[in-house]
Amino acid sequence: MKITKSLSKALPVAGLAGAMLLGSSFTMADDGYHSRYANRFEPLPAIAPIPADNSLTAAKIELGQMLFFEPRISASGVISCATCHNPALGWADRIPRATGHDGQVGERNTPTVLNSGFFTAQFWDGRAATLEEQALGPIEADIEMNMPLDQALERLREFTEYREMFARAYGGNGADQITPDNVAHALASFQRTLNTPNSPFDRYLRGDLAALTDAQKRGMAAFADNGCTACHSGPALTDSQFHAIQVPGSTDEGRFVVTGDPGDRFRFKTPTLRNVALTYPYFNNGGVETLEEAVQVMGREMLGREFDQNTVNDMVAFLHSLTGEMPDIRIPSLP
Amino acid sequence: MKITKSLSKALPVAGLAGAMLLGSSFTMADDGYHSRYANRFEPLPAIAPIPADNSLTAAKIELGQMLFFEPRISASGVISCATCHNPALGWADRIPRATGHDGQVGERNTPTVLNSGFFTAQFWDGRAATLEEQALGPIEADIEMNMPLDQALERLREFTEYREMFARAYGGNGADQITPDNVAHALASFQRTLNTPNSPFDRYLRGDLAALTDAQKRGMAAFADNGCTACHSGPALTDSQFHAIQVPGSTDEGRFVVTGDPGDRFRFKTPTLRNVALTYPYFNNGGVETLEEAVQVMGREMLGREFDQNTVNDMVAFLHSLTGEMPDIRIPSLP
Repeated sequence: MKITKSLSKALPVAGLAGAMLLGSSFTMADDGYHSRYANRFEPLPAIAPIPADNSLTAAKIELGQMLFFEPRISASGVISCATCHNPALGWADRIPRATGHDGQVGERNTPTVLNSGFFTAQFWDGRAATLEEQALGPIEADIEMNMPLDQALERLREFTEYREMFARAYGGNGADQITPDNVAHALASFQRTLNTPNSPFDRYLRGDLAALTDAQKRGMAAFADNGCTACHSGPALTDSQFHAIQVPGSTDEGRFVVTGDPGDRFRFKTPTLRNVALTYPYFNNGGVETLEEAVQVMGREMLGREFDQNTVNDMVAFLHSLTGEMPDIRIPSLP
Repeated sequence: MKITKSLSKALPVAGLAGAMLLGSSFTMADDGYHSRYANRFEPLPAIAPIPADNSLTAAKIELGQMLFFEPRISASGVISCATCHNPALGWADRIPRATGHDGQVGERNTPTVLNSGFFTAQFWDGRAATLEEQALGPIEADIEMNMPLDQALERLREFTEYREMFARAYGGNGADQITPDNVAHALASFQRTLNTPNSPFDRYLRGDLAALTDAQKRGMAAFADNGCTACHSGPALTDSQFHAIQVPGSTDEGRFVVTGDPGDRFRFKTPTLRNVALTYPYFNNGGVETLEEAVQVMGREMLGREFDQNTVNDMVAFLHSLTGEMPDIRIPSLP
């Protein structure tokens, strides 16, 4: 009886203490994972770093959004950035390799533009360092939009609305402001807003211990303990560095094509894992359709090990927790 | 003095009477045009007629919207209905002739899908009578999406989300519901919502005499008095009938290709004039870039007369008043 009484008295107190703990701060509580792993990851900020030479303005973002959806800067008149970086498909295309002008199929899988403002290298081979350097390439690439930049600029100058928008974004006379740099700065500004914060994983890192399932927590632990974080690090889960990998079916020499340095043969930029559940198929050649197989391939190719099925399942569950809030983008009305 | 006084007394009364007239009902007032011309036109309803065999439901509209933006029912995996019927370009493509699979260029200009639920014939040659009959053609057409329908249906059945959405829209087992008819009914249901009410012209017809400029009113009068309303009639300003016309540069035999009836040679369906300012270039071959030239061509080809420049300017002003409120469509997240 006494024991029961003392228990019955103790219980509410313990309950209160628990409530105080939870109430005061999530991070004071722990689930056996958060205290060990949360500090090995970074939540995704809502806004990507803004470079000193391209201040982020509403006028540039609005202009960049229109240019992103503008097919008349392609030779066919029907291909825009949004054709391969399709907002309906995780801002990628969900086919193995990019398909562009006249149905030509490129060598590589279309990377998502989501969170690309957090990368310090662009393209699979890093041939551009910034979004500004990246933006114009696909317009001119003969297997993508296939329009010489001069023609694309001339096409834009024909539209009063574009002349006005370039003037709003860059001042002066609109037509004179329709330059390669200004097109690139506008496209980069728009892309810098295409981020996906507040995924279950981000909420977990900030202390919401219920944001991840037990399987996802085990997967996060396996991901870190197996060294995946050596390359998949930082807010976008990529180091933007180049690592040698030859996935099944790929003969692509990757970074070597850019530098000519034999040490770069078969090196590719670490892809972001943010929203990876939406950006199938996987790898530089889009040769792998499922996350399960992708995890197994990475174990073999990069770590030289076979993950057991439970580990694979947990890591796949974890990767699903990296899907964040999609940017709310409306289709612009083009001139 | 007396006169002045009587005037000074009369004026407020007249002003009051005018205010009463305007206040009581727009249609009691007149601008010299409304009483003569408003009854020769019809405002555009917000919803297109719904056929007895395809009730309009939220589930069908939502599914139809996803299918409309779905590129994986094309052979290349990158062409969807929205590629040529681009919401950013007045739900058309703003190039002379449709460009589809592998960059092949078709014979005809892409018609807008806006307000197409008001047509009683679809395609330039009317080879489909309804949106339901029209919907599947472009998926299979080798110069458009180029995917055999069976393959397209198989592709859709692979996705749990599509199986669930077809079940929500049509009941029963989702996979079994992924049929040609149900795909067509969903696409037609979505398109039936793509209407553009409340244009300045519609507001004018309903009695807002200030909704049109004087030039637009003169253009409306010239449009009616020159007999344009003989074919451009009804809420979408088309009779959905076939009329012989050979515009500059066109050798297309039009309706004849469908019926084989020599009387149908060079006959084309009257295109809607709703949002015509957004749906350039014009005519079956997209051979005319500006509204001004389009009006002149119609005068010559259909009416055998040369409009003077003032009449052309007024009619172009009127045609601009036919641009309505664009449907507010978000880009869906596809599975």
